[in-house]
Amino acid sequence: MAPNLFPSEHLADAQAQLDRLIAAHKPGHALQREFQTDPGIYRLDLERIWRRGWLFAGHTCQVKSPGDYFVFDIDTDSLVVIRGDDGAIHALHNTCRHRGMRVCQDESGHLGRIVCPYHQWTYARDGALLACGGMDRDDDLDRSEFGLHPAHVREVAGLIFVCLAEDPIAFEGAEQSFAAMLKPQGLERAKVAAVRSYEVNANWKLVWENNRECWHCNTSHPQYVKANWDNAPIDDARLKQEIEAHARATSARLRAHGLVIDYEEAGMVRFPSADCWWSINRTPLVPGWVSESMDGRPVAPVMGDYPIRDVGTLRMRTMPNFWNHSSSDHSVSTRLAPAGPQKTRIQVSWLVDADAVEGKDYALATLLPFWELTSEQDWDLCENNQAGVNSSAFTPGPYSTKREYNVIRYTDWYLHQIATP
Amino acid sequence: MAPNLFPSEHLADAQAQLDRLIAAHKPGHALQREFQTDPGIYRLDLERIWRRGWLFAGHTCQVKSPGDYFVFDIDTDSLVVIRGDDGAIHALHNTCRHRGMRVCQDESGHLGRIVCPYHQWTYARDGALLACGGMDRDDDLDRSEFGLHPAHVREVAGLIFVCLAEDPIAFEGAEQSFAAMLKPQGLERAKVAAVRSYEVNANWKLVWENNRECWHCNTSHPQYVKANWDNAPIDDARLKQEIEAHARATSARLRAHGLVIDYEEAGMVRFPSADCWWSINRTPLVPGWVSESMDGRPVAPVMGDYPIRDVGTLRMRTMPNFWNHSSSDHSVSTRLAPAGPQKTRIQVSWLVDADAVEGKDYALATLLPFWELTSEQDWDLCENNQAGVNSSAFTPGPYSTKREYNVIRYTDWYLHQIATP
Amino acid sequence: MAPNLFPSEHLADAQAQLDRLIAAHKPGHALQREFQTDPGIYRLDLERIWRRGWLFAGHTCQVKSPGDYFVFDIDTDSLVVIRGDDGAIHALHNTCRHRGMRVCQDESGHLGRIVCPYHQWTYARDGALLACGGMDRDDDLDRSEFGLHPAHVREVAGLIFVCLAEDPIAFEGAEQSFAAMLKPQGLERAKVAAVRSYEVNANWKLVWENNRECWHCNTSHPQYVKANWDNAPIDDARLKQEIEAHARATSARLRAHGLVIDYEEAGMVRFPSADCWWSINRTPLVPGWVSESMDGRPVAPVMGDYPIRDVGTLRMRTMPNFWNHSSSDHSVSTRLAPAGPQKTRIQVSWLVDADAVEGKDYALATLLPFWELTSEQDWDLCENNQAGVNSSAFTPGPYSTKREYNVIRYTDWYLHQIATP
Repeated sequence: MAPNLFPSEHLADAQAQLDRLIAAHKPGHALQREFQTDPGIYRLDLERIWRRGWLFAGHTCQVKSPGDYFVFDIDTDSLVVIRGDDGAIHALHNTCRHRGMRVCQDESGHLGRIVCPYHQWTYARDGALLACGGMDRDDDLDRSEFGLHPAHVREVAGLIFVCLAEDPIAFEGAEQSFAAMLKPQGLERAKVAAVRSYEVNANWKLVWENNRECWHCNTSHPQYVKANWDNAPIDDARLKQEIEAHARATSARLRAHGLVIDYEEAGMVRFPSADCWWSINRTPLVPGWVSESMDGRPVAPVMGDYPIRDVGTLRMRTMPNFWNHSSSDHSVSTRLAPAGPQKTRIQVSWLVDADAVEGKDYALATLLPFWELTSEQDWDLCENNQAGVNSSAFTPGPYSTKREYNVIRYTDWYLHQIATP
Repeated sequence: MAPNLFPSEHLADAQAQLDRLIAAHKPGHALQREFQTDPGIYRLDLERIWRRGWLFAGHTCQVKSPGDYFVFDIDTDSLVVIRGDDGAIHALHNTCRHRGMRVCQDESGHLGRIVCPYHQWTYARDGALLACGGMDRDDDLDRSEFGLHPAHVREVAGLIFVCLAEDPIAFEGAEQSFAAMLKPQGLERAKVAAVRSYEVNANWKLVWENNRECWHCNTSHPQYVKANWDNAPIDDARLKQEIEAHARATSARLRAHGLVIDYEEAGMVRFPSADCWWSINRTPLVPGWVSESMDGRPVAPVMGDYPIRDVGTLRMRTMPNFWNHSSSDHSVSTRLAPAGPQKTRIQVSWLVDADAVEGKDYALATLLPFWELTSEQDWDLCENNQAGVNSSAFTPGPYSTKREYNVIRYTDWYLHQIATP
Repeated sequence: MAPNLFPSEHLADAQAQLDRLIAAHKPGHALQREFQTDPGIYRLDLERIWRRGWLFAGHTCQVKSPGDYFVFDIDTDSLVVIRGDDGAIHALHNTCRHRGMRVCQDESGHLGRIVCPYHQWTYARDGALLACGGMDRDDDLDRSEFGLHPAHVREVAGLIFVCLAEDPIAFEGAEQSFAAMLKPQGLERAKVAAVRSYEVNANWKLVWENNRECWHCNTSHPQYVKANWDNAPIDDARLKQEIEAHARATSARLRAHGLVIDYEEAGMVRFPSADCWWSINRTPLVPGWVSESMDGRPVAPVMGDYPIRDVGTLRMRTMPNFWNHSSSDHSVSTRLAPAGPQKTRIQVSWLVDADAVEGKDYALATLLPFWELTSEQDWDLCENNQAGVNSSAFTPGPYSTKREYNVIRYTDWYLHQIATP
């Protein structure tokens, strides 16, 4: 059975199972096994989360000029994200209105018009049907009704978000936060230096549960914890003082440049909540570290408007599929997409200033390892987590409110979304 | 889940879904997504089409002598097609009547008797159980009840058709047409020069939809359109005249030899219809072309009774699994079999005169490319079509009545078959 | 769909189908196709057989010292079999009580404590939760409730059995038989010389049906039948006399050493029965053969307490997943585990005396082939049997009461188990 092809006639069964599972879920505890395995729950995840929320698709710098495009697959859906002649970015379903052929088969590229390779139905860069020569109905076929199905698109500060729903949820809150905070990073003037793509054998929610705490960082991410304090217990008073002092000192230095460290606490910023799917904040790096690199030293030229290198890390995340860590010299975006009940497609992209030259201004050998290692360590954990959850003996255990408060928040967010028809 | 192992207890669900889909289908439009993806619909396809109609299995020249056999798999069914001692061809289910072992494990070969490799139950070439030594019940086991389950077989002019149904539909119409038209091709006196096998990740119906129009040929089949006029729009008056004139000229030349070009129109011959599952006709090649080869020149000795090389192309097709193009010097058969909702097994076979010697009379390097390229170009299109149809945004578009009249006819044929319990 | 993740909401359907299948099953005949293919029946197999009976897991010599462990997977369940500080062997579900991570990811090894790689929840070798530092609830979290879920374990004469059921069925009968008969073999003082792991594309029941008769040995196991008489028809009077005479002669020789050939008949010992899931017996080898090796000659030093080499073969088997043949110099265990409706994981292990030195006292080139060949010949048969059973034309045939009496017994045993809710 292909990923999202759960038979519609069994959706009532899936809803009934969901109701039973939600009723039996213990607050503060892990989700039951079926949430991570069942094809019917997976189908509901697609409908109520992946085809409802705003999804991070990519970066505006990937589609700089009209006709530039890239493809973004979500389960068996496929979107062509393309810049139109009007300069706006469009997201178009990659399925010809004639017989359903994928109109774009490459992962990215440049197109004058979108010409379906099957029978040359020809669409403008905004999806409008321009020509379908050969149709006898050219006269009575109303072309305006046969444009590529669009998805909603929003751009903010170099990031592109799409939404598959007919009536998307509000974007303004995220837009304001991101626009203000992301401005100095200059992502619009960046370029993608490298991309790594992964197929992880784990349900997408296990990937988030992994992401939403740094308790596991101590042993699993030796290089990450050298640079960051995410793994600090929130009740370690001495460490708390040290972090706050360092954060204030960084802030003091940054304030002159209109920047601020807005998260001074130990541990991770609280996110998500039932009614907020985005967040962004600036965090200090540990003393001596000016970039999320293996040794803390810079790995590329300064990006955007930063007047100094030592700006901490700008971090953001949006539910259900995006997180990004930006140092002053590079920015790393992680994008998730479900590909089955136990499969998640993940793309990690490294961005640097658009003018930086590989081999001269930066080298992949120093730019990539910090997040490449951290990411791959996490995917391993997720796959072994899925394998263990598949056991018939698995019983969801309690989360730590000190160490896994964000996993609890995440689980609450998820249950709220999935319970909403 | 193995291909055809859709749980029987869910067949009522599948029927209910089929009813809904048929009621919602727009005439002249593509089939809805579920027809190409749903395991329940696939199960109904097997029962109402693949286990009901006549299937092309292979060529009589593959089983020249008693004991020669080849195996033909349809979904998880497997047939042994074998020539018996009486000279007749038998189709026997490849599942031992003892414990179900596949009795033939090679794709083809020669057998004195069919001996099950597990416990040596021994069957005659017509499937009759001859021996099952070791059964204590030898005396009371009525051997006549334990022959290999047979399928129906018909031979016509060198082609072998089988039918899995208990009471097969009529074959006589196809037999008469094929016997008359195929005679000069001499397929009985041919040999298989090469076979290519493919597993295409597309529903079998998308393969037919691809086959039933040549609108896509313009861009997808550069070498095919040099030789043929299938891609000609039926409303191009000038081209229509040219084709008709050339067809009449060819006919005039052939008539002396008892042959005729019986299709003089632009575009493809109309096929199928709700009540006719076969068709055969002779089509002109473009001027200067005497064989479906890369340059139009002969690639093998003349076959059968042809007195001259320039006989156009003899073409035939039968629903649901066969098409063939025969030039004067070689003949190419394509055989389909379903292998899952999104998987089709395809075998393409090239035949030449039985006395032709490879390396002397013909070379694979010139014999194969024309249809090898055309076939593989089509399989790519089918796979990308399936990928696009899998999108939740897919909406079936309108067919062109000028360019896709046969896809419309095919869709009507299919819906008529599948709706008949 | 992962192997055991059959949706619970369809279990009633599976039970209804089982009822229909049992009602339609013809005694003395093969099981119907659905028993070997249907995901719902597979799920019932797991619940009523694999999570109910005693499963052979491995050998005590694999976990000689406290902290030695190996992992045993059954469908998507995973057990850590580990020797505790008290010297007892424990079987622990390989799923952390926190978030379900697989706590052991290697196939075998040595552990001081079992530390979950995710958040370092730390368990003693008996599964007790020792530490979960970081839990704010350390105080109110009752650690005694969060040990690794245990499975039942029994050891007998060097063999380890586990049971996933809460209330395991009786083990005492098997214990007594095995303890008495296995003692001279000295398996506790053995070592594993080699392991071969297989994934066989066949339902686990087809593997047993293959194992429960030696009718197929004549043609499929040329080297096996040189050493053994299993393939002897039980109604061959001359052969029966010969076997009995040889068995008595061997017994006479062995009796002085407290050993006896306790199976003197032609053919295989009768096993299983509806109420007995284990059996063990000593069988003569053919004259001139002193070990199950390619030429019948010894392949390793004598094991255990055997005073002479010519002791025939000690054989044992337990439902649903174990058989073993032990010569005087080596012992071969075969362990099954289901991995899907049409997939069985099989591990074959060769044991020799613990003090034997590879390259000096034995060589894998002579130790392995006899059972490696026999095993792989059988897996081929099983896969082709599955392929044939998948045919829609498959009809279950009659078993021979002379040659397949144990397959009949096995089928009866299976139907009795699966029918018991």
